[in-house]
Amino acid sequence: MRAAVLRGGTVQARVIDDPVPGPGQLLVRSLACGICASDIHFMDHLEAGADDDSGMSTYDRDVDIVMGHEYCAEVVDHGPGTERRIPIGTRVSSLPVLSTGTGRRIIGQNPESPGGFGEYLLLDESLTRVAASELPSEIVCIADAISVGWSAASRAQLTTKEVPLVIGCGAIALSVIAQLRRLGVGPIIAVDFVASRRGTALAMGADVVIDPAEISPYQAWRDVAHGSPESTKEMIAMAGLPGCVVFECVGVPGVLDSIIRGCERGTRIFSMGGPPEGDHLSTLIAKRKGLNIQFGGGPSLQHWDEAFEAVCSGSLDVTPMLGRTVGLDGVAAALDASRDADGPVRIVVVP
Amino acid sequence: MRAAVLRGGTVQARVIDDPVPGPGQLLVRSLACGICASDIHFMDHLEAGADDDSGMSTYDRDVDIVMGHEYCAEVVDHGPGTERRIPIGTRVSSLPVLSTGTGRRIIGQNPESPGGFGEYLLLDESLTRVAASELPSEIVCIADAISVGWSAASRAQLTTKEVPLVIGCGAIALSVIAQLRRLGVGPIIAVDFVASRRGTALAMGADVVIDPAEISPYQAWRDVAHGSPESTKEMIAMAGLPGCVVFECVGVPGVLDSIIRGCERGTRIFSMGGPPEGDHLSTLIAKRKGLNIQFGGGPSLQHWDEAFEAVCSGSLDVTPMLGRTVGLDGVAAALDASRDADGPVRIVVVP
Repeated sequence: MRAAVLRGGTVQARVIDDPVPGPGQLLVRSLACGICASDIHFMDHLEAGADDDSGMSTYDRDVDIVMGHEYCAEVVDHGPGTERRIPIGTRVSSLPVLSTGTGRRIIGQNPESPGGFGEYLLLDESLTRVAASELPSEIVCIADAISVGWSAASRAQLTTKEVPLVIGCGAIALSVIAQLRRLGVGPIIAVDFVASRRGTALAMGADVVIDPAEISPYQAWRDVAHGSPESTKEMIAMAGLPGCVVFECVGVPGVLDSIIRGCERGTRIFSMGGPPEGDHLSTLIAKRKGLNIQFGGGPSLQHWDEAFEAVCSGSLDVTPMLGRTVGLDGVAAALDASRDADGPVRIVVVP
Repeated sequence: MRAAVLRGGTVQARVIDDPVPGPGQLLVRSLACGICASDIHFMDHLEAGADDDSGMSTYDRDVDIVMGHEYCAEVVDHGPGTERRIPIGTRVSSLPVLSTGTGRRIIGQNPESPGGFGEYLLLDESLTRVAASELPSEIVCIADAISVGWSAASRAQLTTKEVPLVIGCGAIALSVIAQLRRLGVGPIIAVDFVASRRGTALAMGADVVIDPAEISPYQAWRDVAHGSPESTKEMIAMAGLPGCVVFECVGVPGVLDSIIRGCERGTRIFSMGGPPEGDHLSTLIAKRKGLNIQFGGGPSLQHWDEAFEAVCSGSLDVTPMLGRTVGLDGVAAALDASRDADGPVRIVVVP
């Protein structure tokens, strides 16, 4: 098959062997696959694997890896030992995890579990879901990106005495915003340096958008949540004013620490970024403020299924997140373009 | 009064002005006051104040500060506007916070709120509690050290499907262990390089103590919690084996990161240390593992009161934590000695 192949830290379109479905696996054809910041994290930080003892990703510059874990695909063949419950030709997607004889693998991060930046990939039949949708594959494939923020926003279980602050307006942030909106939580305050991203955040359900170059996000949060720029921490504590829940959706070193320094006492932080370089955090300040940080964690299967259904049914409109599409020859340049915070939220590969 | 005075980063016993009680304050005489690692953090890192906008501590090398926030004291005088509900001569203690006309101050970290390393200090009448106890003041004063870990262990709300791992066996760790024991949680696994500290941990209620020079605390935890050294992460997830709750009670840079690297997926971490230098954390690993970190935060007043009552009544025996006592002239050397992880858990100052 043709594929955009990662090797030695760079991506090139060329022909490699077709994947062969093993027990319980489906062979599918990639119809569309979104480019995610975690693809760039992965290709730029292959040395980060020294820390990962899960075996779910292969960190090796000297093997061929086809990235891409946000796919919409079409069933081509059923592997041995499958239930064959999904007919050939059906449009599908899945949580990007593949069971193999030697353990579970993240799809798009291993030689034996190629992703959607190639013509064919393998899915776990038990995780595969039918795309019951009239929407184009370029929209359906965005569901996986939605699932991460959907899961975080759901797990956060905000009370009516809490007001969310979303830092960054990329794909994860937008899905956090969309799910908070559906859960009836608000006002939702979102922050990004880039005007177009702030516009997309409003389209996805944010109530207030902030340019951090103009005002401190934490002061802006206080103005909105407490209704008074002059409210002091003691007034807030005594009046039982709303607490702060921050969603960190940037993944650049320094951002989580700036949240720790800027946020209110007792803030709950959901950190979705997880930069490969790690981060120097002001732990004494975190201790003084009694902060809680919940780190990432992928979506639960239930939340993935919920997000996929919401996108397929059209009840969650992700059209504002879609930028342009590219072919396999354009993947390398599109990955580079995705480094630009001013670009579209999602560039989608159509092999 | 005579006091061990911190100035310019060093401590010297000399005569300074007596404190004068303001509205709602009591003048008390210090009978005994424990030396805490946070005293050493404070005196060694006066520059850390640049990050603290709470106004609760004074970070200034050029003013006189009397440290000491773990005190047992005797009421000497009632300030203006007090209820005078506690008679002169009564033994008391308090949560180490003092309300002043310009905001709340941590006792022992400001010129206007001297601590127990001097002859006299000021307490907030509303926070002052009578020491209903026959125990010596050197024991009663340890209650404040107990309250921090007591509060953390209480707030952690371990389920019967969780097994705690306590990293470090200093005062905070020992109080975590004591309260976990009282709550019926276990087995309690405690870790320290120092044999004497491990012995004290057993005396305070630990079930298993580990020398990390001999075995990885995380492997030891798996052996105890899962009953099988061979259990893999997948087996654990499928069998619903106990989850891990780690209490970080060391406060040295690198320890929290080693926990992030070593612990199980989904671990809940209570970080009590909070080194002033901050810490470089492997946020990508934390994200992969879906870790939750609850940082410090002082004890709630309710937990402080509970811990104080438990120590005063003798229902919690903190005798194993008491080392030697020193006078005001011995404070500087005793602070130095407290840097030694091999020393007693608490050296107590008797002014």
